[in-house]
Amino acid sequence: MSSEEGPTQQQQPEQEKKPDEPPSAASDAPQQESGSSSPAAEPPAAVAEPPAAAVAEPPAAAPAAEEKPLSFRALVLTGHGGYDKVKLQVKTMAKPKLKAGEVLVRVKACGLNFAELLARQGLYELLPSPPVTMGMEGSGVIEAVGEDVNDRKVGDRVIALARSGMWQEVAVVSADRTFLMPEEMSFEEGAALTINYMTAYMMLFEMANLRPGKSVLIHMAAGGVGIAATQLCQTVQDVTVFGTASASKHETITQGGVTHPIDYRTKDYVEEIRKISPKGVDIVLDPLGGSDTQKGYSLLKPLGMIIVFGAANCVTGQRKNLLAMAKTWYNQLSLNTMKLMQSNKAVSGFHLGYITDEQLFGRTMSTLLELYKQGKIKPRIDSSYHFEEVTEAMKRMHERQNIGKVILLPEPKKEEEKPKSNAEAGENVEKNDAAISEKKEEEVEAEKD
Amino acid sequence: MSSEEGPTQQQQPEQEKKPDEPPSAASDAPQQESGSSSPAAEPPAAVAEPPAAAVAEPPAAAPAAEEKPLSFRALVLTGHGGYDKVKLQVKTMAKPKLKAGEVLVRVKACGLNFAELLARQGLYELLPSPPVTMGMEGSGVIEAVGEDVNDRKVGDRVIALARSGMWQEVAVVSADRTFLMPEEMSFEEGAALTINYMTAYMMLFEMANLRPGKSVLIHMAAGGVGIAATQLCQTVQDVTVFGTASASKHETITQGGVTHPIDYRTKDYVEEIRKISPKGVDIVLDPLGGSDTQKGYSLLKPLGMIIVFGAANCVTGQRKNLLAMAKTWYNQLSLNTMKLMQSNKAVSGFHLGYITDEQLFGRTMSTLLELYKQGKIKPRIDSSYHFEEVTEAMKRMHERQNIGKVILLPEPKKEEEKPKSNAEAGENVEKNDAAISEKKEEEVEAEKD
Repeated sequence: MSSEEGPTQQQQPEQEKKPDEPPSAASDAPQQESGSSSPAAEPPAAVAEPPAAAVAEPPAAAPAAEEKPLSFRALVLTGHGGYDKVKLQVKTMAKPKLKAGEVLVRVKACGLNFAELLARQGLYELLPSPPVTMGMEGSGVIEAVGEDVNDRKVGDRVIALARSGMWQEVAVVSADRTFLMPEEMSFEEGAALTINYMTAYMMLFEMANLRPGKSVLIHMAAGGVGIAATQLCQTVQDVTVFGTASASKHETITQGGVTHPIDYRTKDYVEEIRKISPKGVDIVLDPLGGSDTQKGYSLLKPLGMIIVFGAANCVTGQRKNLLAMAKTWYNQLSLNTMKLMQSNKAVSGFHLGYITDEQLFGRTMSTLLELYKQGKIKPRIDSSYHFEEVTEAMKRMHERQNIGKVILLPEPKKEEEKPKSNAEAGENVEKNDAAISEKKEEEVEAEKD
Repeated sequence: MSSEEGPTQQQQPEQEKKPDEPPSAASDAPQQESGSSSPAAEPPAAVAEPPAAAVAEPPAAAPAAEEKPLSFRALVLTGHGGYDKVKLQVKTMAKPKLKAGEVLVRVKACGLNFAELLARQGLYELLPSPPVTMGMEGSGVIEAVGEDVNDRKVGDRVIALARSGMWQEVAVVSADRTFLMPEEMSFEEGAALTINYMTAYMMLFEMANLRPGKSVLIHMAAGGVGIAATQLCQTVQDVTVFGTASASKHETITQGGVTHPIDYRTKDYVEEIRKISPKGVDIVLDPLGGSDTQKGYSLLKPLGMIIVFGAANCVTGQRKNLLAMAKTWYNQLSLNTMKLMQSNKAVSGFHLGYITDEQLFGRTMSTLLELYKQGKIKPRIDSSYHFEEVTEAMKRMHERQNIGKVILLPEPKKEEEKPKSNAEAGENVEKNDAAISEKKEEEVEAEKD
């Protein structure tokens, strides 16, 4: 099956563009899957990204033909669909001339997020249209700084955040969206900290009002956000965590701080929670959507809050599943304020992508880095895949095999090197991809009925 | 106009009932407005109230015929409609035999709440069907204690909370729902503290997450909850309060802590707030409902929360207004979770009447009494009316003349005594009731269009 293959590596010399030259019609066209590629400038869609959030690629204002060109690997979404739509390309371009406030980062590790699985299926409206280099978070070393950048210097190890474009060996980002890494933090940890921990932190402490003695239901407790949320719950006294995950992950998540692990595949989590806590829970973090939101709402204690921050129930197979989407949409919680009053409950939505408050990002990252230094949080790296193994990486997350963060490494894989994986399950995926994949999709389908 | 008249005083000797004797058909019938009354036992509806929350009246289990009978005044809702549906009755009954956990309170002051205006119109589902003695809060002195009551004694000055039945000279309440008053607290203050401050406190600190530097929109900022919320905002550093009230009240609410008073009658409060804070506010407390909920939602900053805790927009005239109700219902905010995610906002509902968590009540009251002792909160008494003046009291609140709490006093008014009022406006109401009433209703109508 072609959709199960790894990404085709494409050699793609980037043309030097004259400033302000409109992109040719050819360069606008989505790249073909054949592996041969037109010498394309980046699509104009990238220009439409919010400047503060976007990785500034390509260096449209960098025509210096005399400089040594830069060659780099990038993972590009070439269209919407299955795993094969994400392709590894090698780009060549003139060394970028940084604008004021920008820095050039040599990327060492990148985070894979559920949003990128959605984006590949065409379900994430914040990513520019393909072709586009994906990736919202990464870590690396600063190679150059633009004007007016006073608090970053060449050689600084930083975490970087962007709306897209972090999955490449070098990236131009706004210095405001970089955060200095503590010495003891690995690049993998740095890449794992941003999206998952910021999401978990803002939900628990900015939206909800997590305080001593409260209880929290964390779905997908072994996922990136799940583990981050569980760790953050440990920073508050006497918080009870209910965490759903398949049974094989229970030991790990229990060690991580989940008080009551629940196997959502074999048990009704609503019943399980009611057995332990008849009154329900104070906070529900809901990345699933659809009927699970209704269940979560029903589980809330008076004065409790459910935060919906995803619609993972929309994603079943590799490609967009209209039936799953329709079901999720149909079952989503609809509310009027009278109903809320009678139950004394709160419903909220969270999506980091729609937050544009730079101060909030800065404040949250400072808090998180401080908690890291104090040893109170520590990203759990599930596995690291080189760019050429991106299909395996996506598959691992899609099939919920991961316990913690899945990392992508820009540097080429050495011939003899196996994928770095902390979990035994990682090797199963490699050996027996297709079989596991099919089994899982059946399970997922069955489970949602 | 009969509906503008004060309540008819009714002499109503309460029959001594044999235990377990079913009430006669006559005693079940709603009392007539004629002023003459059948010797009625309390209606069976009262029995259906949750025991912890209800004032145990009448003493169905108190048949001791040899004891000296108790005669007391009570404000009884005799049917749904205008002001004239609340009647002052004098009841006579055997001295109640307290059940375990109960205390008998000689009531000195009662609070009037917006809920009672709604209840009179038949818009408050938590009050038992008429005829029923109204009143959810009061203060007084303990006259007798039942078995198993160890932390209350005869002579204790207490605040008492109930689902209904506090508007009478003596009330039997659950000891759990009484709270010892600090020495320096007047009975009026005690009666003003419970509902308004608990509502404001739970909304700001349990549901929302009020922290230093946040901003809050408080509608009806001169009302009971409004003033309580404003004072509670002052207990947190650097909180900005936007408060709506008519211009004549601005000086008072500004002194009370409102940073930006807004005359909602002459200005668009959304525009006014945007002028001062283009990004909006963090918390909206919304007692209005309908289109104001939509406006409040639109004003929220990302990660902000609107709490709907009433539907004052339903109440225009004296009687149930189907058009206003339909409008409020039609315009109420309806949400799905996708929309919430894209805006990073939270919507919640609050209704103290639906909260049954005794520990939460106890904890909240302790906090409030502590804040009172520290001088950080102090109920503002707008005016005090004797039971026979209940129409004026309701009118004052209905027409939003009050700045702070309207209190009802069980003790009979002395002939020469004027109503106790802190506000000059109070006397206007007395002198020129009908004129003001009509003018206000027009204004309210115009404003809601």
